[in-house]
Amino acid sequence: MRFYEKLDNITTTHDSLVCVGLDTDPLKIPDHLRGRDDGVLLFNRGIIEATADIAQSYKLNLAFYESLGRGGYDIVRQTLEMIPDDVVTIGDAKRGDIGNTALMYARALFDDFGFDAATVAPYMGRDSVEPFLRYEDRGVFLLALTSNKGSQDFQYLEIDGDPLYRHVIRTAQEWNDANNLGFVVGATHPSELEDIRGMVGDLPLLIPGLGAQGGDVEKSVRGGTTAGGMRGVFNSSRGIIYAGGGEDFADAARSAAIDLRDTINRFRTAG
Amino acid sequence: MRFYEKLDNITTTHDSLVCVGLDTDPLKIPDHLRGRDDGVLLFNRGIIEATADIAQSYKLNLAFYESLGRGGYDIVRQTLEMIPDDVVTIGDAKRGDIGNTALMYARALFDDFGFDAATVAPYMGRDSVEPFLRYEDRGVFLLALTSNKGSQDFQYLEIDGDPLYRHVIRTAQEWNDANNLGFVVGATHPSELEDIRGMVGDLPLLIPGLGAQGGDVEKSVRGGTTAGGMRGVFNSSRGIIYAGGGEDFADAARSAAIDLRDTINRFRTAG
Repeated sequence: MRFYEKLDNITTTHDSLVCVGLDTDPLKIPDHLRGRDDGVLLFNRGIIEATADIAQSYKLNLAFYESLGRGGYDIVRQTLEMIPDDVVTIGDAKRGDIGNTALMYARALFDDFGFDAATVAPYMGRDSVEPFLRYEDRGVFLLALTSNKGSQDFQYLEIDGDPLYRHVIRTAQEWNDANNLGFVVGATHPSELEDIRGMVGDLPLLIPGLGAQGGDVEKSVRGGTTAGGMRGVFNSSRGIIYAGGGEDFADAARSAAIDLRDTINRFRTAG
Repeated sequence: MRFYEKLDNITTTHDSLVCVGLDTDPLKIPDHLRGRDDGVLLFNRGIIEATADIAQSYKLNLAFYESLGRGGYDIVRQTLEMIPDDVVTIGDAKRGDIGNTALMYARALFDDFGFDAATVAPYMGRDSVEPFLRYEDRGVFLLALTSNKGSQDFQYLEIDGDPLYRHVIRTAQEWNDANNLGFVVGATHPSELEDIRGMVGDLPLLIPGLGAQGGDVEKSVRGGTTAGGMRGVFNSSRGIIYAGGGEDFADAARSAAIDLRDTINRFRTAG
């Protein structure tokens, strides 16, 4: 199945645009799991079991797992195995390297881990992105306008009257031969989101920055989804997975995911 | 010891600006090692033993090891253990993410693997780079003007009459409080290298793209080093590690590394 189709199917089945960010920090998991060798894995299992019928997608930021050293690799594998096949998985890796090297990263994320989609960085240009795009059944979310404060440093620099992120979006769309490209646009930029949705038509947008980062849900949903209320992937990590701090963490995560799904759906136009 | 000092010491001791790129592809190693579980590690051992007195530094591109799956992590660790302590190690990871996540990547590269330096991507701005820079005893090479064809797509876009890569270099120098910053500039852009050396004073430049990528050695060395012929890190990967294709691969790599060192030194001004 192609990526857009898989994304649309689960969006409809679960009536949800919620992407649960499994950015699991071993120091932030509940007391009864902290310090255990399998603590992160048990935590992820609890979150997934509690949210698998609510989530459109799960996003694993690889940084959190790489920081665990040797065991991190297995935890990613085992976490991915727990996620139902029809739910989208995103490897948030933000990789970018010269062509022959980007191919190695694409293999690691798509062949070895088996993610449905990956995030990729644009700075190194076309040959750094194409090895990912050549996986026709996988999705590629290219960084455009990120959710963090540092997005102000370069992404807004004006080139011929247009900010850099608009050049990135315009140029990268020319690379979308396999129809599997999307962009990352932070919910912390709600006005720009609307403009970007206008530029990209119905390409998927991965929209982080709700919750802990303070993005505006209503504006992000109205601006970031298509006319049919689709193709938005709204990531919340800390706001869902750390909603509860104790043994009830999974129940609390489920409630937070349901709340976010329902809040988002209130602002979606009919799907 | 601080990073610049460590780099200068080994540059002087080995009279070398050669950075050996351990971008080991299991499909490209000699027949007698290919297909063995420990083939990549044995290959790296052979290369390191044959070049450890010639190299200023070794650069491991993480993509090649991540593409190996589960075993890749251990091979990076074991490879790093083989490298003499006074030779600089660079984790070529090109990471870039929001602040709290960038910190996880910095931990993975500096605390867990223990690299002396890492490459970092600039697109996400200051908070994505600072967690690396806060490791005062480690070096950070920020991508500026990369060696690949895709460098033409965004890095040359003009902002107020100046290309993006010059903005990146100028802005990032304001973040260099700990005096541990450097930049990545491809040898495939020899004229720009000279201009960039003028902009950055004596900051180190990691200069890939010699050899297989066709960079001009003389111009790159004259343009990329300081007036004293220092602070250049000239990476060659395929040109050294695959110089021989058979059981003599280590000897061939040694000869290629010596040739490159001597060629570079011919164009260095007195150190």
